[in-house]
Amino acid sequence: MQQTDVCIVGGSAAGLVAAQITKGKFPEKDVLVVRDTKSALIPCAIPYVFGDLGSTEKNILPDKLATGNGARVLIDRVTAIDRAAKTVATRDGETISYEKLIFATGSQPTVPGWLKGADLGNVFTVPKNKDYIDQMVKSFDTGKTVAVIGAGFIGVELADQLRAMPMEVHLIELLPHILGMAFDEEIALEAESMLSAKGINLQTGVGVAALTGEGTVQSVELSDGRSIPVDYVVLAMGYRPETGLAAEAGLPINERGFIQVDEYMRTGDPDIFAVGDCAEKRDFITRRPSGVMLASTACAEARVAAMNLFNLCSVKAFNGTIAVYSTAIDGTGFGTAGVTAAAAEKEGFQIVTGSFTGVDRHPGSLADSHKQTVRLVVARNCGTVIGGGVVGGTSAGELTNVLGLVIQNRMSVGDLLTSQIGTQPCLTASPAAYPLIKAAEAAWDAMNRAPAPVAV
Amino acid sequence: MQQTDVCIVGGSAAGLVAAQITKGKFPEKDVLVVRDTKSALIPCAIPYVFGDLGSTEKNILPDKLATGNGARVLIDRVTAIDRAAKTVATRDGETISYEKLIFATGSQPTVPGWLKGADLGNVFTVPKNKDYIDQMVKSFDTGKTVAVIGAGFIGVELADQLRAMPMEVHLIELLPHILGMAFDEEIALEAESMLSAKGINLQTGVGVAALTGEGTVQSVELSDGRSIPVDYVVLAMGYRPETGLAAEAGLPINERGFIQVDEYMRTGDPDIFAVGDCAEKRDFITRRPSGVMLASTACAEARVAAMNLFNLCSVKAFNGTIAVYSTAIDGTGFGTAGVTAAAAEKEGFQIVTGSFTGVDRHPGSLADSHKQTVRLVVARNCGTVIGGGVVGGTSAGELTNVLGLVIQNRMSVGDLLTSQIGTQPCLTASPAAYPLIKAAEAAWDAMNRAPAPVAV
Repeated sequence: MQQTDVCIVGGSAAGLVAAQITKGKFPEKDVLVVRDTKSALIPCAIPYVFGDLGSTEKNILPDKLATGNGARVLIDRVTAIDRAAKTVATRDGETISYEKLIFATGSQPTVPGWLKGADLGNVFTVPKNKDYIDQMVKSFDTGKTVAVIGAGFIGVELADQLRAMPMEVHLIELLPHILGMAFDEEIALEAESMLSAKGINLQTGVGVAALTGEGTVQSVELSDGRSIPVDYVVLAMGYRPETGLAAEAGLPINERGFIQVDEYMRTGDPDIFAVGDCAEKRDFITRRPSGVMLASTACAEARVAAMNLFNLCSVKAFNGTIAVYSTAIDGTGFGTAGVTAAAAEKEGFQIVTGSFTGVDRHPGSLADSHKQTVRLVVARNCGTVIGGGVVGGTSAGELTNVLGLVIQNRMSVGDLLTSQIGTQPCLTASPAAYPLIKAAEAAWDAMNRAPAPVAV
Repeated sequence: MQQTDVCIVGGSAAGLVAAQITKGKFPEKDVLVVRDTKSALIPCAIPYVFGDLGSTEKNILPDKLATGNGARVLIDRVTAIDRAAKTVATRDGETISYEKLIFATGSQPTVPGWLKGADLGNVFTVPKNKDYIDQMVKSFDTGKTVAVIGAGFIGVELADQLRAMPMEVHLIELLPHILGMAFDEEIALEAESMLSAKGINLQTGVGVAALTGEGTVQSVELSDGRSIPVDYVVLAMGYRPETGLAAEAGLPINERGFIQVDEYMRTGDPDIFAVGDCAEKRDFITRRPSGVMLASTACAEARVAAMNLFNLCSVKAFNGTIAVYSTAIDGTGFGTAGVTAAAAEKEGFQIVTGSFTGVDRHPGSLADSHKQTVRLVVARNCGTVIGGGVVGGTSAGELTNVLGLVIQNRMSVGDLLTSQIGTQPCLTASPAAYPLIKAAEAAWDAMNRAPAPVAV
């Protein structure tokens, strides 16, 4: 029987970072990552393998993240966990004892059971699996027609990259707008007009009824009765947490299918932690169970688990998941943090919004300048910023992180108005028209205009 | 006699923003900006007038910032203030009564009294004055030699722009490194090697003894005895607050020469406020009087003054000046926030530092990727992040703002390690190697390695 001190099941971003930090903090412990694929992909860059990168070889998440710190990586699959004996069994016949175990088993693409034809040839999903993605890249031919079903961030980025091959691309979304979970209409419309201008055929507010074809897919049947002839289909309909092993080991699973964890990422078993896409999330603002899956969130959870693995540190708990994410279309960045106005109202917040459009250089006549918009969602009763969106040039990703910290620090609009922001002609908007602050001014005005809350 | 409700003396960034916010918040008040130049320049972009912009016409801070909200701008100069009568007198013979007055008189370039030859022809400073800068632009000839004295942000940016004309450029700095007040050596060295590679002659750790010439400047005499033949000299040796009018009106001036103000930007006179370069600053971290002058700080102060002008709001006070600023050399951004390690130690902090170098895209093989370094300065006893520096691509400006918010929210290294950051292949570093978080890890490790503080 092999022995390790810390066994990490899964070796994508969350698993490797958990191994790295654990080994850094507890160098005397043996740390073993068990992963069933030879290498891991950088998850968020997978769409770019189909265009800008050209190959999965340029998109490998290096194992040296973990091995560089002295952790080990074993290519094998954990098939069962014996919590009483504190051992795992593997596909290759190993039994490995552990002191602490971390689930980092990630997620798998969702394929709805009701979708007929999902098993036809040339129908793909987007798993975080190198061999699958390699095969998929080879299958696509320039000039053919593909339908991408689902216009979340993965669907949008993939549609954009496939269009650039070029292919004929249909992007189909059930919600009224693309990226509809991330952005309110104002910002989603900008992204839609950019994609349309690139020649992507957007079909929003319409579902998919079935995929049809003989052996390989030939047509997407829409819920409104239309039919789109296609050569390929990509299902980008979300991901489900991979929790089979945890459930078999008797660990509690929440109502959304995630492994239950507390703020230290501990499961029901005191020696077993879970991090990343497989681990339960609670929304930072609404405090509801959340289905958000982001590599950045996964890495933060991995750090928290690693640092609390052998003894707890009260300052390093995870206080809820805040979705901070962004995408890019041809040098235009779109970012979001916290809740949308629509989600906030649905949850019961009384809100005001404020938005401002400026330029991300000053003066705007400098080369490389790009329009920049910030939109804030503010809880009216307390003035706390609870969400927002950003559209701008390539600095929009970091500006979204500025917004993310505003929300995580529970800053109010008043705090923002007295915040100090650094500005530089070639790098940022003007100090007199910095969109984040101007949007706060607009929200402040709206708060002061808003009628007093009605007593219930 | 003319009448106004709010008289703002000075109409650059701080004055115009103060007018804009005052009018927005108190639309029933008459707001008058008195400025002695026809138009204001965007202050931080003045160096770019000599190169990328080509003319001051492209660098005008539009009066419509204020007039668009209904404020008025009067081109005239306030020559005296009668605080008892609550009136101002102007050069053109007007007397204007006010209810509230805001000083936004800015700053003027420092020319040390001991510097012989500063009055020679072709010796320039960098005032925020359109006519002067227009004349200066006309005076420079391609191919000639210029010495820029002082390698703060203005000196560095100007040297870079003049070099691109191209001119032969000497950049002379008394401190051991350029940008030495903003960055610790590690980052300053990177900026130095970039400027050297562009052919700028750096002379650091050496002072200027005198400027010599007959009528026009012909030589810079260095303190080490060397002599540099030049056609032009630009003195970029800092700025002094413009407070003559305030002092004559009997308002208290602090030991660094700034108009004394409290957290609401009120001077010793309850009806007179001061904002921007002329107003006293207190360092956010050290709590000492600070000499920092930034348009972004000025605009934040203008907002605070305007919002507290007629009645105070406790949440909108100014809790100290945090220097958040950045510069760019050929697409490489350099940013700083809070205190340097050297300044922190001088002040009495026991510190640790942490730094990490990664790439601002992921994978780094994506087009447009740029090396990115973050360095953090942390107070060891409490773990609070009190400063840091950033080097990266053009997103470094906004990443510096992320760092600025970390410091303003008094976040600890532990807080940072559990923070959620959004990452996207085309816009940011990888979630597993995001330099800000990795630098926090390094600082955390250093804190845990550091010996316990010695009891005094």
